[in-house]
Amino acid sequence: MKQFNRRDFLKAASATAAASVISGCATGTQSGVITPPAQGRSVIGLVAPKMDIVRVGFIGLGQRGFGHVKRMSHIAGTEIKAICDTHDEVLQRSANYLTDKGLAKPALYTGADNAYQAMLNRDDIDIVIISTPWSWHAPMAIDTMNSGKHAFVEVPLALTVEEMWQLVDTAERTQKNCMMMENVNYGRDELMVLNMVRQGVFGELLHGEAAYIHELRWQMKEVEHKTGSWRTAWHAKRNGNLYPTHGLGPVSQYMNINRGDRFDFLTSMSSPALGRSAYAKKEFPADHQRNQLNYIAGDMNTTLIKTVKGRSIMVQHDTTTPRPYSRHNLIQGTNGVFAGFPNRIALEDGGSKSFHEWDYEMADWYKKYDHPLWTKMGEEAERNGGHGGMDFLMFWRMIYCLRNGEALDQDVYDGAAWSVISPLSAQSVSNRSASIDIPDFTRGAWQSAKPLGIVG
Amino acid sequence: MKQFNRRDFLKAASATAAASVISGCATGTQSGVITPPAQGRSVIGLVAPKMDIVRVGFIGLGQRGFGHVKRMSHIAGTEIKAICDTHDEVLQRSANYLTDKGLAKPALYTGADNAYQAMLNRDDIDIVIISTPWSWHAPMAIDTMNSGKHAFVEVPLALTVEEMWQLVDTAERTQKNCMMMENVNYGRDELMVLNMVRQGVFGELLHGEAAYIHELRWQMKEVEHKTGSWRTAWHAKRNGNLYPTHGLGPVSQYMNINRGDRFDFLTSMSSPALGRSAYAKKEFPADHQRNQLNYIAGDMNTTLIKTVKGRSIMVQHDTTTPRPYSRHNLIQGTNGVFAGFPNRIALEDGGSKSFHEWDYEMADWYKKYDHPLWTKMGEEAERNGGHGGMDFLMFWRMIYCLRNGEALDQDVYDGAAWSVISPLSAQSVSNRSASIDIPDFTRGAWQSAKPLGIVG
Repeated sequence: MKQFNRRDFLKAASATAAASVISGCATGTQSGVITPPAQGRSVIGLVAPKMDIVRVGFIGLGQRGFGHVKRMSHIAGTEIKAICDTHDEVLQRSANYLTDKGLAKPALYTGADNAYQAMLNRDDIDIVIISTPWSWHAPMAIDTMNSGKHAFVEVPLALTVEEMWQLVDTAERTQKNCMMMENVNYGRDELMVLNMVRQGVFGELLHGEAAYIHELRWQMKEVEHKTGSWRTAWHAKRNGNLYPTHGLGPVSQYMNINRGDRFDFLTSMSSPALGRSAYAKKEFPADHQRNQLNYIAGDMNTTLIKTVKGRSIMVQHDTTTPRPYSRHNLIQGTNGVFAGFPNRIALEDGGSKSFHEWDYEMADWYKKYDHPLWTKMGEEAERNGGHGGMDFLMFWRMIYCLRNGEALDQDVYDGAAWSVISPLSAQSVSNRSASIDIPDFTRGAWQSAKPLGIVG
Repeated sequence: MKQFNRRDFLKAASATAAASVISGCATGTQSGVITPPAQGRSVIGLVAPKMDIVRVGFIGLGQRGFGHVKRMSHIAGTEIKAICDTHDEVLQRSANYLTDKGLAKPALYTGADNAYQAMLNRDDIDIVIISTPWSWHAPMAIDTMNSGKHAFVEVPLALTVEEMWQLVDTAERTQKNCMMMENVNYGRDELMVLNMVRQGVFGELLHGEAAYIHELRWQMKEVEHKTGSWRTAWHAKRNGNLYPTHGLGPVSQYMNINRGDRFDFLTSMSSPALGRSAYAKKEFPADHQRNQLNYIAGDMNTTLIKTVKGRSIMVQHDTTTPRPYSRHNLIQGTNGVFAGFPNRIALEDGGSKSFHEWDYEMADWYKKYDHPLWTKMGEEAERNGGHGGMDFLMFWRMIYCLRNGEALDQDVYDGAAWSVISPLSAQSVSNRSASIDIPDFTRGAWQSAKPLGIVG
């Protein structure tokens, strides 16, 4: 019953939020978003009781989930107790990998979409790693926390404003961790830039740029099990930024989002959507399912985010047009700028040359500003691989925090703030790029929250 | 009297336009902008009667105006009849330059702000080159056309929506040219990209990016006569994109803006404004005039423009923070992308390598796609200099069209559309980045207008 009232309340709330856009545009009011009443204590800085051994369950063992199983099996102080997937082939693949390594065979859960719930009933699991299609992230993470376990979810955390609030409320009610596993925040470059920002190298921050420009039309050829089998459908469901967090996560940590600043409002614009239908016509027969979809997601989406401290962030999404990969990863302050893809730096004070010229030579910058976490773990991370080590470093850090009684580097508020850009960008695009207020999922706690521990 | 009614009407119109933003945001209506009744015939494709000799007058002989005098003196078929500036030193500098070259001494006009009007009363001048502070562009161009002469105006064309309409109406009533001299459209790279776009190299266009990122804090040291003496004040008057046309002009021609497509609406966001006040504190005594200004223009402004055909354009403005110069100059289509600063290309079909990698080597692209205008005149343009030849090429092309009975490459509608981004971006920034409709200065003629002649 409660669940239903909750749902209805949230529906009403988001309707009001949408309506408030009108006055938001007309008067610049900041009262656009209704914050629902809290159901528990804030989980900013949440520290779970120290774990000697971290007992792990996995939901989703596709390409990404299998990689996570392999990574976890390399990390001391962990035990993989159970794994779950509806696709038996990938389930066995992970089980065999572990037994071939001489590790205990995990319990296997499969056979139905809700098979994961039986796994959640076990009492010998501390954390659950969720690597499933986007639409399953929120319900599985909520069930995980309600079963007394900590949830670690692939990106994006969830898909709608309503789901974000449900995740925040569940985390606060259960006092469990709900971390969206944004691996890019653990890249060597991103960690170095975070370190440079904290040391004031760029002066006072003004503007950042992020992107997920990654040509993925080829995924349309995956019609069962693999990512493209379900991800493709989103290009026919939502016109906005479908996948904002990889670029936005690091820029948000540079700017202390939810820890001294927060997202205030956004506006979003999409280009025409031409690439996916053209690719389908070229690659598939006329009666193929890929030629039955109406692709509405603009090939290039550009979103602008304003923070309460007045900073601006540009975020782009393009997984369709033929372009070299980029996450932009640009941070600009009063003393200069770092930009990625390729890495380059220009500084007024402290640069190796005039700020009128880019410095593309990173060696000396790494030497001077590599993040302590990278200095400590970088070599092992690169040895264990996964996007240049960022995946391993993220896992290593997750387990380190759980075993040593430290707060995680990313909390449910971060995952919600970074992920909510997707539904809100679509709302703006469908409204002639209207300005849309962004919910404060921390309910004001951002004002007193301390910056990230990993910078200490 | 007419003038007054006109003014009142426009005030009412722009008020209504501002109000309509509300419904623009709420309902996505396109009826946001009131188009005033025409006072004459459209000047799209206007061809002035052929001139054997083009007789020229100059208003404004500062750094930019003097450069224009020198350029014009190199171009056959022109006579510089009169020059005007309120600053006697620069007036004499231009006069001496011409007489030292053995050319006839031009008549000199000076002594008062309205001295240019006496020059406009002459009957031996065909065109007037206006290189004065921004706030003088519109009134001087309007007076020029009303005196029966063609106006050529430095960027931006004007500063307010009201001024843009006055220029359009005056041009249509007098059937005179009013060209904003956007020199960047005559750069070798911009002409090559225009040529590539017209040949379909990038496929169907989707998205473009433009910028004026050019650190100009040093101009704050100019407190009389020179650009900084008046331009600095705009950073305390307007928070938006103060100078949009250099980057936007070429991207607009790639997209056939006003010739098959047009700007529909925009949204704009500014970063905090920190750099100018910090620079003033550092460089000037506390009681200096630069320390009395309240600098409100955000150091970085990012504006998104949507076209009626659905394409998106991102335009940035930053003349304050320490960054390398860039105009972005990015154009993206279904087959790939060109980006500038530094030049790079990635294409799916027809590229020298996979589109996953940038091709930075331009030599072969120049060989294959240099614009016919550059092939014909580029060497002479580079010899005569001025921003790598673009200034000379623009002048050469202006005079060529006037002497050969061809339409100019840029008309009053282009200048108005590219320049109106400044006041409208400020309106959006002051309204939480509200979506603002952009006037159709062509009053519908964009739908039937042919693409630029220079591509033929």
